[in-house]
Amino acid sequence: MEFVCNLPTKIYFGDQLVLLGKELEKYGKKALFVYGGGSIKASGLYDRVTGLARGAGIELFELSGIEPNPRIESVRLGAKMCKEHGIDVVLAVGGGSVLDAAKYMAAGAKVGFDPWLFLSEHAPIEEALPVVTVLTLAATGSEMDGGGVITNLQTHEKLGRMEDILRPKASFLDPALTFSVSAFQTAAGSADILSHIMETYFTTEPDLYMLDGIMETLMKTVIKYAPVAMKKPDDYEARANLMWASSWAINGFITGAKPQAWSVHPMEHELSAFYDITHGLGLAILTPRWLEYCRNEKTLPRISRFGENVFGLAPSGDLEKDADAAIKALSDFLFGDLGLTSTLGGLGIGREHFAQMAQKAVKGGVVEGFIPLAAADVEKIFEMCL
Amino acid sequence: MEFVCNLPTKIYFGDQLVLLGKELEKYGKKALFVYGGGSIKASGLYDRVTGLARGAGIELFELSGIEPNPRIESVRLGAKMCKEHGIDVVLAVGGGSVLDAAKYMAAGAKVGFDPWLFLSEHAPIEEALPVVTVLTLAATGSEMDGGGVITNLQTHEKLGRMEDILRPKASFLDPALTFSVSAFQTAAGSADILSHIMETYFTTEPDLYMLDGIMETLMKTVIKYAPVAMKKPDDYEARANLMWASSWAINGFITGAKPQAWSVHPMEHELSAFYDITHGLGLAILTPRWLEYCRNEKTLPRISRFGENVFGLAPSGDLEKDADAAIKALSDFLFGDLGLTSTLGGLGIGREHFAQMAQKAVKGGVVEGFIPLAAADVEKIFEMCL
Repeated sequence: MEFVCNLPTKIYFGDQLVLLGKELEKYGKKALFVYGGGSIKASGLYDRVTGLARGAGIELFELSGIEPNPRIESVRLGAKMCKEHGIDVVLAVGGGSVLDAAKYMAAGAKVGFDPWLFLSEHAPIEEALPVVTVLTLAATGSEMDGGGVITNLQTHEKLGRMEDILRPKASFLDPALTFSVSAFQTAAGSADILSHIMETYFTTEPDLYMLDGIMETLMKTVIKYAPVAMKKPDDYEARANLMWASSWAINGFITGAKPQAWSVHPMEHELSAFYDITHGLGLAILTPRWLEYCRNEKTLPRISRFGENVFGLAPSGDLEKDADAAIKALSDFLFGDLGLTSTLGGLGIGREHFAQMAQKAVKGGVVEGFIPLAAADVEKIFEMCL
Repeated sequence: MEFVCNLPTKIYFGDQLVLLGKELEKYGKKALFVYGGGSIKASGLYDRVTGLARGAGIELFELSGIEPNPRIESVRLGAKMCKEHGIDVVLAVGGGSVLDAAKYMAAGAKVGFDPWLFLSEHAPIEEALPVVTVLTLAATGSEMDGGGVITNLQTHEKLGRMEDILRPKASFLDPALTFSVSAFQTAAGSADILSHIMETYFTTEPDLYMLDGIMETLMKTVIKYAPVAMKKPDDYEARANLMWASSWAINGFITGAKPQAWSVHPMEHELSAFYDITHGLGLAILTPRWLEYCRNEKTLPRISRFGENVFGLAPSGDLEKDADAAIKALSDFLFGDLGLTSTLGGLGIGREHFAQMAQKAVKGGVVEGFIPLAAADVEKIFEMCL
């Protein structure tokens, strides 16, 4: 049981954005400044970032309009701008979509080929420009990991990859920058954080006791604070806990010696690729059905433990009953406390592409997660979500 | 509430020592190979390390005989060897003492003055040679932090310091290398790990919920597995959990936004400096008395919570009673399950230096920890340990 733990991203947590200029100037004088829509202008963050960067003598080249579920077209444009302007560092300000896109721009800047090949053909990523991030949404964990997911709407593909070289050099995590996140985005982001942990937590492999406990703590943190942040958007304690839990859910620490294929994310990526729905919402709809589908003699103890240690349910002595209760507690949280839409039907999605999406989710093979899932299994799980 | 999280050490966990040569050659061709006594020769580790390093074309310069409670004389010698031989990287193989000494050798190699000034005068550490470690004892966490404690027996001083620049570049953590650790050293190391967490956990500041839960998980991990490893030294699961918990107890992650002065370590450093006792044993003797001394209206809730969440004690509704039970559970663990000597008297230590040690522990001032401790307080705590 071997693993490598490599967490090189320097995190500035709290009100430390004033150090942004100093951090950027470590890498050079020209930054590609990547962001999404107008929200950072409305909030004043745009002015703070540009002021701090220019105050440190950094020349900024702006690329705005990065989409939720970021598109390969944006990545291509960013990589081209890096080459044209001799960019030294990519500065990503926003949520996971902006950060993910920025990472592939940073890698694309170093190659002569279409950056989509990083995703579609797993083309080698041997070099990348340094990436510095300012996070405005607790959800994907992109601020501390080497991952990124890019959508190609032409091919109906949403593909991701994890590489240490794509980990940001530094990330600024100020919980106050997430006060303006809407209740819906807070809920969807929280469902995303939970899913990252659950993809690792639900396993039939023996685990390190310590990491199980840490995963349970992270899940309890999300369950405790997501509803608080939805009701009181400027609750610093809630936003801080969500933000830090989000980073640790996916930076590689909890995976430890127990890597396994993720199950729910590949299914959700098909939903987003076909219907462009919010990632966390898709995960929320899928997860309880996936757990239900995974129930068997081997998985029941783990599902029951989840109910006991994460939701504080008293064990009944009957694993079947305890698993029922655990899955119900999770559904109640996602669709009750977080108020997320509970079915694909509720989003106007029908079964017409399920067979095709299922094939793509398992890449024509079998995903070896909590239970092995072939295309037929995934199709059944999609059906359960209708 | 701001903090910086910076964890640059790359960890190779499990049976991956075969990558040692590849890691060393990143930094150059000449390594100072620092280790303690003959135990790594007896275990075969010496031969593996030298074979792997030489196989990668690394020239090794050996410095053995690093003491438990490592001495400044060893550090001076190592720094001198680094300069004389043009060393590129310091390779430390052993427990925390060897690693601590190696860090100050790496820093001493870059300056013209006596490295003791790093400790006694807080002389600036602006540069250091890269340090790579192979850990053989789970205790101090030196493999992933920037700390190190050095003893000067001439001045009766045992002083430490934390600097990011002293964090190892890479550490090899193979739990199997700790199979040969004796029951006593396993117990003392486990007391050290627990103490690192407790120094942070016991606070009257409000905390991040997430980090509290993670600290409780780390403490539960030590409490569960230390007795297992003592009874069955080659229990991989137990050794792996202790080893990984040890690194995370002190790498800075759990401190988060809540830095406070440590209380028990400065007291223990005086014990070790005066009597050269095993660090973890000194911590074990001091900790329950320190908690007892800290009891007041403000601290009782935290002590009670510790009993409930770490030892699984049922709350009685009476905080005084719950704190009693928590401190008793800790004592039972340290002196019962771990079998450590419970008093200073049991080690042949009397009160003759208490006043002087107490003055030195608080540096003539007040340590602001769980409760503020002046010299008179520390002296009383020493008395409680007799």
